[in-house]
Amino acid sequence: MTLLYALDLLGTAAFAASGALAGIRRNMDIFGVLVLGLVTATGGGTVRDLLLGDTPPFIFKDETYLYLSLAVSLAVFLFHRRLDRMLHPLTYFDAVGLGTFVVIGTGKGLEFNLGFVGSVMMGVMTATAGGMVRDLLSARVPMVLQKEVYASACLIGGALLYLLHRHTSLPHAWSLLLSAGTVIVLRLLAVRYNWSLPRAAGSDPTP
Amino acid sequence: MTLLYALDLLGTAAFAASGALAGIRRNMDIFGVLVLGLVTATGGGTVRDLLLGDTPPFIFKDETYLYLSLAVSLAVFLFHRRLDRMLHPLTYFDAVGLGTFVVIGTGKGLEFNLGFVGSVMMGVMTATAGGMVRDLLSARVPMVLQKEVYASACLIGGALLYLLHRHTSLPHAWSLLLSAGTVIVLRLLAVRYNWSLPRAAGSDPTP
Amino acid sequence: MTLLYALDLLGTAAFAASGALAGIRRNMDIFGVLVLGLVTATGGGTVRDLLLGDTPPFIFKDETYLYLSLAVSLAVFLFHRRLDRMLHPLTYFDAVGLGTFVVIGTGKGLEFNLGFVGSVMMGVMTATAGGMVRDLLSARVPMVLQKEVYASACLIGGALLYLLHRHTSLPHAWSLLLSAGTVIVLRLLAVRYNWSLPRAAGSDPTP
Repeated sequence: MTLLYALDLLGTAAFAASGALAGIRRNMDIFGVLVLGLVTATGGGTVRDLLLGDTPPFIFKDETYLYLSLAVSLAVFLFHRRLDRMLHPLTYFDAVGLGTFVVIGTGKGLEFNLGFVGSVMMGVMTATAGGMVRDLLSARVPMVLQKEVYASACLIGGALLYLLHRHTSLPHAWSLLLSAGTVIVLRLLAVRYNWSLPRAAGSDPTP
Repeated sequence: MTLLYALDLLGTAAFAASGALAGIRRNMDIFGVLVLGLVTATGGGTVRDLLLGDTPPFIFKDETYLYLSLAVSLAVFLFHRRLDRMLHPLTYFDAVGLGTFVVIGTGKGLEFNLGFVGSVMMGVMTATAGGMVRDLLSARVPMVLQKEVYASACLIGGALLYLLHRHTSLPHAWSLLLSAGTVIVLRLLAVRYNWSLPRAAGSDPTP
Repeated sequence: MTLLYALDLLGTAAFAASGALAGIRRNMDIFGVLVLGLVTATGGGTVRDLLLGDTPPFIFKDETYLYLSLAVSLAVFLFHRRLDRMLHPLTYFDAVGLGTFVVIGTGKGLEFNLGFVGSVMMGVMTATAGGMVRDLLSARVPMVLQKEVYASACLIGGALLYLLHRHTSLPHAWSLLLSAGTVIVLRLLAVRYNWSLPRAAGSDPTP
């Protein structure tokens, strides 16, 4: 499906840019910046493929992802001071990446006949594990565990795809687009309205 | 073996509770608490299965582990303030989990024809890698590397199972129970008497 | 190739010593010191084998690596205060390990028919991932992402091996030695002259 591949590459580029920026903020050298860009963009899909036993992971079967991630990270390293006016569009591209990665991951879980939780986990992991590794390599608690409705949007989109695929006769392409669109819209609404999830600490732990 | 499966589920629940509590202490949102509970309970066995090439890992073949870990973590998130009177039994359940995870892991290493060190490593990893990932996701040095006779009890139990299985004619079920029991007893004694391992820093590095 | 195996073991021992020293500096107990030695020495090759789907990883097929790493780490734990006069040779052994691990990793990528970036990544990962995990387990930003021309030497050596193997008729053993030698010389020059890579922060981000 060519549209999905195009969205996948767009998301890969957006994730690579966010990873490279994190490396620059941590004062890493050029190697560190390239590694953080690469890991953020491709780490989630790599972990998914390892768990599914589909080795070598997708990045070694189609090196486009590797070249794209490295090129974007290098561009960010060279021109990051002119990147300020790119930060607004980056939020949109990042949301597109999130939605695309979720449906690709959940779709692959379905293909490998995983159950409901397993398939949804594959989607969430594809979208968030790269960012987790980026934060671990920066010696930080992963952002996704602490704030924002980032993972929840992925959970909902993954669950939607699983249900549409297993329990309706909707064409697969439509299920993919609908689920990815749901993630993207939820993510952008969360950014726009600054939604956050309940936490247990404080006086009222019940959500 | 039904008893082993029951003990495995009990240990999974105890590990999930300890992971969820760590997430609450780090002020994570509900997603973070669920992820930490899940990872602590199932991460060790997942790493073991990845290393053995037995993919997809056990949690995707029997989703009971996933549902149980998520349910326990959710319960901890909702009711953690009433959990204080649970902390004492939790130590016992945790020790049961430790012993069970060690013999399941070492047993699987034996099944895959690993050598002595490899089989024991599989047992220790099944029991401790989930907690290590929990600590990494909290940006902390893994507890198991720093204090308490936690891993040593696992090492002894794993080595015992390997020796009993390879060099005696004891029925496998007996070997499993004896080894798991050894880990559980050692662990509870270590908690009770506050044992600790030698460390190299300080004036007398020789143990 | 027996020479390569001997160099591999020498590198394994050097990496184990550096990992064990890191554990001692972080005041870990004996279990932590052994784990850090083991992970630093064998983690890179293990991650490589996982990514290639070559499971169980090499350490479980030839336990020599495990016994050697544990023995060296134990020796460092016991005698680390007499190790000062060993630190100078350790730099050389470490460089030998770096070169050997790069050509073994890149060679294995070639064997599994990976492309250019994939093969070079396998080499760099074999040489650096163990140290990254060591730093993560110490709750530190991986050294390799921050300073010194450590990974760059690996990149150059891996790329050289790929090109020699795919585009010349040089005997494979010669390509291996030439590439490993390049890494070793670059690494020692970098230590000697204190080379470092450009970083983006500061007033002139362009290298």
